[in-house]
Amino acid sequence: MALLEDTVAAIGVLDEKAMHAARARQAQLTKPPGSLGRLEEISIQIAGVQGRARPDVSRKAIFVMAGDHGVVAEGVSGFPQDVTCQMLANFAAGGAAINVLARHLGARVIVVDVGAAGDVPASASVIVKKVSRGTRNMAVGPAMTAEEARRSIEAGIEVFADTRPLDLAGAGDMGIGNTTAAAAIIAACTGRPVAEVTGRGTGIDDARLAHKVSVIERALAVNCPDPADALDVLARVGGAEIGAIAGVLLAAAAHRVPVMVDGVISSAGALVAAGLAPRAVPFMIAGHLSVEPGHRAALAHLGLVPVLDLDMRLGEGTGGAIAMHVVEAAVRTLNEMATFSDAGVSGAL
Amino acid sequence: MALLEDTVAAIGVLDEKAMHAARARQAQLTKPPGSLGRLEEISIQIAGVQGRARPDVSRKAIFVMAGDHGVVAEGVSGFPQDVTCQMLANFAAGGAAINVLARHLGARVIVVDVGAAGDVPASASVIVKKVSRGTRNMAVGPAMTAEEARRSIEAGIEVFADTRPLDLAGAGDMGIGNTTAAAAIIAACTGRPVAEVTGRGTGIDDARLAHKVSVIERALAVNCPDPADALDVLARVGGAEIGAIAGVLLAAAAHRVPVMVDGVISSAGALVAAGLAPRAVPFMIAGHLSVEPGHRAALAHLGLVPVLDLDMRLGEGTGGAIAMHVVEAAVRTLNEMATFSDAGVSGAL
Repeated sequence: MALLEDTVAAIGVLDEKAMHAARARQAQLTKPPGSLGRLEEISIQIAGVQGRARPDVSRKAIFVMAGDHGVVAEGVSGFPQDVTCQMLANFAAGGAAINVLARHLGARVIVVDVGAAGDVPASASVIVKKVSRGTRNMAVGPAMTAEEARRSIEAGIEVFADTRPLDLAGAGDMGIGNTTAAAAIIAACTGRPVAEVTGRGTGIDDARLAHKVSVIERALAVNCPDPADALDVLARVGGAEIGAIAGVLLAAAAHRVPVMVDGVISSAGALVAAGLAPRAVPFMIAGHLSVEPGHRAALAHLGLVPVLDLDMRLGEGTGGAIAMHVVEAAVRTLNEMATFSDAGVSGAL
Repeated sequence: MALLEDTVAAIGVLDEKAMHAARARQAQLTKPPGSLGRLEEISIQIAGVQGRARPDVSRKAIFVMAGDHGVVAEGVSGFPQDVTCQMLANFAAGGAAINVLARHLGARVIVVDVGAAGDVPASASVIVKKVSRGTRNMAVGPAMTAEEARRSIEAGIEVFADTRPLDLAGAGDMGIGNTTAAAAIIAACTGRPVAEVTGRGTGIDDARLAHKVSVIERALAVNCPDPADALDVLARVGGAEIGAIAGVLLAAAAHRVPVMVDGVISSAGALVAAGLAPRAVPFMIAGHLSVEPGHRAALAHLGLVPVLDLDMRLGEGTGGAIAMHVVEAAVRTLNEMATFSDAGVSGAL
């Protein structure tokens, strides 16, 4: 079989025995039952993902996938396409938000050029796995071939495998124009109207937002992506970095590594991953709720509840990175708190 | 003047110049303007609190204030009163949730017995500043004298002063029965109906919740606290640990240290602090939104927007502690990200 199919086939289910043990321990810790709320749920999920009653999230990495989008020719973004490569250099130099947040967290940042239009200097610590030099303009035809779409997913799977061992992973994006592709994927996969799932991206005004909606509607009408075929959706209206994110999410599930989904782009990647392997979803944690309206629709479709809601809309994996602190807090309280009997504390009357 | 009045008099206003400089820097960092959302706002607030365009939150401490409540005689809690002292010993031994979260954060935990009914073993690392051995039953008369209430606030101010220098502080609580006192303070200060601001605390059932509401209504009718006099409210229907939390919040503002408000008990302390010194509020950050219904009412009254919403209801300062990671992320992105010109990244078209 091919790498994609092998990876999908390797995805199992959450370990019920480990989850049961974690749940039982939560009930014995010195706090009113349930009082750590979402932290308790996350700790139990991570136990199930890792198959360990006492999980560990020490080794962390955030995968930042970069690609360009031919649809920028339609004037959908407020930033020039050069910014994708300039930001790749910024990631390599450690100056972007995700670098700062990863340092704060003690996580590695793995930057991958899956489809930038230009080149980053060879000295830069960027992994180059180019599927193409930017996608084609989806407003006039398919953004990628089926083969390019598959290769973008497999790029994510390969990079994940090369980065292991890992205990907690995150996926993020960089790509001028990619909120346009993400909105198209979300509209195609969820069936929601384009206007409902399309946002301002880097900050476009009302007139350009209306234009962006019409461009996405045209792309969907021209390409007719098949919502039952996630690879088809990715190829026709997606992007290479979105495919690579889907690859990271699938690989994480296959290797039983909990994985943070970031904002609207990453959630489009999660829709692609879920379309290929619905069993991957319980291995995911939605880091935050983005300001981008399509994000809420994508998470609802996936059945994921975001950990944070901080009015962010940056991408790069930043929302997932900040939520990793909450995941660490969840795992550490599960592992390190005293039980009622350890501490000699009375239980409920 | 007395310590309380001196502290209130020392509270200034946020430094507009530092905030302006932080805001200007945010606009130059390599990200779409505003895309870090709440993180940008928090970084600017902290700049204003500390009076530094590049703030620092390295030295962190969380103050856990403990006290008992005579109103437990009415059967308002699901846990026995002994748990307050047992948990003090657990804090001292490092086994409680707040200990784990503080270790994760690199923060000190300062535990203060302001009014526990029993005694913790002298070996335990708990600061003893007892105002009383538990308050009196507010359902039949004032919980504290005016002098006890004042001393409880001053205990918080003293402990804060003894713990400095600090760059970021948090306040939390321990005390069986204290959601009853907190709900009474919140009802008195906000004018909301008792039933609307009273919750299940450690997890009581419907029948006991209805009883708890009637006990609080009786306490307010018997004591008639004056909402215009925060010290009077604290004395009549409050608790020593709530006063001590108010003291920490006031001292933090006076010393220009940003301070995290935790859940419903800490927010009752924040209402007392705000009643004594409205200028203290801009120095506060609401860490999270608790499940306790009074919390939302208290934060709305204070005009504070919680950073996290994780369905927590533990107290101890735990919600504030987790939110400190977000505050650190906010400050580090402000300080450490590259600007567009540093990184050679193009701005918006």
